[in-house]
Amino acid sequence: MAQDASIYSLTTPAVLIDENIVDKNIARVQKYMDQAGLKARPHIKTHKIPEFAKKQLDAGAIGITCQKISEAEIFADAGIDDILLTFNILGDEKLAALKKLHARIKLGVVADSQTTIDGLAKTFDSSRPLRVLVECDTGGQRCGVQTPQEAAKLAKYIDGQDGVHFGGLMTYPLPNTEDDVETFFAQTAGLLKADNIECETFSTGGSPSLFAAERSTIANEYRAGTYIYNDRSLVRAGHCGFDDCAMHILTTVVSRPTDDRAVLDAGSKALTSDLLGFTDFGYVVDYPEAVITGLSEEHAVVDLSACTDKPKIGEKIRIIPNHTCVVSNLMDNIYVHMDGEFDRKIEVAARGRVW
Amino acid sequence: MAQDASIYSLTTPAVLIDENIVDKNIARVQKYMDQAGLKARPHIKTHKIPEFAKKQLDAGAIGITCQKISEAEIFADAGIDDILLTFNILGDEKLAALKKLHARIKLGVVADSQTTIDGLAKTFDSSRPLRVLVECDTGGQRCGVQTPQEAAKLAKYIDGQDGVHFGGLMTYPLPNTEDDVETFFAQTAGLLKADNIECETFSTGGSPSLFAAERSTIANEYRAGTYIYNDRSLVRAGHCGFDDCAMHILTTVVSRPTDDRAVLDAGSKALTSDLLGFTDFGYVVDYPEAVITGLSEEHAVVDLSACTDKPKIGEKIRIIPNHTCVVSNLMDNIYVHMDGEFDRKIEVAARGRVW
Repeated sequence: MAQDASIYSLTTPAVLIDENIVDKNIARVQKYMDQAGLKARPHIKTHKIPEFAKKQLDAGAIGITCQKISEAEIFADAGIDDILLTFNILGDEKLAALKKLHARIKLGVVADSQTTIDGLAKTFDSSRPLRVLVECDTGGQRCGVQTPQEAAKLAKYIDGQDGVHFGGLMTYPLPNTEDDVETFFAQTAGLLKADNIECETFSTGGSPSLFAAERSTIANEYRAGTYIYNDRSLVRAGHCGFDDCAMHILTTVVSRPTDDRAVLDAGSKALTSDLLGFTDFGYVVDYPEAVITGLSEEHAVVDLSACTDKPKIGEKIRIIPNHTCVVSNLMDNIYVHMDGEFDRKIEVAARGRVW
Repeated sequence: MAQDASIYSLTTPAVLIDENIVDKNIARVQKYMDQAGLKARPHIKTHKIPEFAKKQLDAGAIGITCQKISEAEIFADAGIDDILLTFNILGDEKLAALKKLHARIKLGVVADSQTTIDGLAKTFDSSRPLRVLVECDTGGQRCGVQTPQEAAKLAKYIDGQDGVHFGGLMTYPLPNTEDDVETFFAQTAGLLKADNIECETFSTGGSPSLFAAERSTIANEYRAGTYIYNDRSLVRAGHCGFDDCAMHILTTVVSRPTDDRAVLDAGSKALTSDLLGFTDFGYVVDYPEAVITGLSEEHAVVDLSACTDKPKIGEKIRIIPNHTCVVSNLMDNIYVHMDGEFDRKIEVAARGRVW
């Protein structure tokens, strides 16, 4: 992108999104899912913007994934009518909100305990039971039942309640653990078959090893978020190249205290402290040898010692973040462009929706 | 705090602020500054709330510190009329905003380069020159001139321009480097005296070693932010105890996948990934032996192996964050209480103001 592109006139820090790259990323992944025979259910955590979710649906996604009710409400308000909430919903206020949401869209949730299911079952009834998937821990060590036996037991428990309907199995796997997912799902399916319980959906996900999804013979739904923008972590994972990263953070060099140090006007409030295994805080597009060694809230400190050319005070430079989703959550707006020509500002409508 | 306190009925995750502790923290630090003969100029980055800045001013602060223009605008709108912007302001749009702000309040900024000063000097004029402090790097290795000689040179440069007025020296030091600050300031003051340039303000800051501020014989202004809420990093620094931490993040246990693992509904979108040298992500008030080993965006994974009592699914537990300021930036609202009794919700008015 040339330094005289109109996007460089924006006040910094600003999150730039190249819409051409967004469209290309969506098309690439949807085509892959179609060929692999998987239903795509993109996770909106990455963009948090209804307009972009609609692009994903228009391309062929069957619905979206949200993590929190207050996010799902934003997307339902925007007319999106098929949402899977991949979260254990607990507490009276949330259950009441869930009931309202269920009344107006096709809704599913996940559960990994009888406690969660009991709350759901008392909230809904047989006139319109809620679809509940059992969350399985296939190695991610976050939520989820630990064994196929537990998964089958919980599925049976759901099947025995009026207010809820067993919808299938869901996992958020670690990258490159397709075989573990396959084993867990297949063993659970075997146990369920013995109990005459139908398992409609086998849902897996994650962007880093997305292009290995075809290896599964049992998964039929795939949830991924980051692929729409891509980021430095997905470049490292081999999912894409830097040219496929739609999000750049435009920053200004505000200080050059020494020959080897630049300071930018974007700190952890713009880039976040997420390292995701890196030891520095983003990829400096315009000075690839530069290393962002530290962040405070409003400043990035950059080591220029490996750079032959060095940026001047006042110069604007772009950064590809380690982790794009968390950047979206910090910003009220993003700035959409096409190859550097500014097009429009979009509100990040579901930013900061934590419950 | 008893589990039946009204604050426990709030939907999670929620940021709780105990107003009694806020008031005590403000009073304690203001009293110290008064005794040490230092003018307090609190940094609003920690709370981002005009109501709390007014508490600090009512206690005796001379003004506030902001990092960005868009933050300062929020506080000026709320009636606060003395603001120091500790940032190099560059770029036409920001300079225009700065000019508008300067027209209505007592404003100061910092600069560490001729480039920054040239931009300021062309924006303002002798009818109402802008107060500019020279930012000095006394070891923090962020922004700032590197030597007293450079500081004096830049002060002289400011002194030679019509649009700007030399206001003094400013540093953001590392903790426990009071002697380095003293040396830098004193040497610069000596050089300025030889040039007959008056240095009104010697401004230093930081919460971790705030109670060593009295050691300086030359600093006359102190900027600190975190002390109003305190956090785990300040407990470690010896500044306060856990009972002095006004901010708790109220969370719900949403999963207990194994006997030793709990998962909370607060991830990096509530606690942030800021480690500040810790290896885990916060102090679990209700289960001090619990260790928050990992965060994803909406989940915290907690190791309970050292706990004798273990929380149940649906139970609400409180966390003191590693770094309180970054949590405020994630939240649209905070929930103010007095010893557990909910009082009011306050908008975090200057949240997300990145430029």
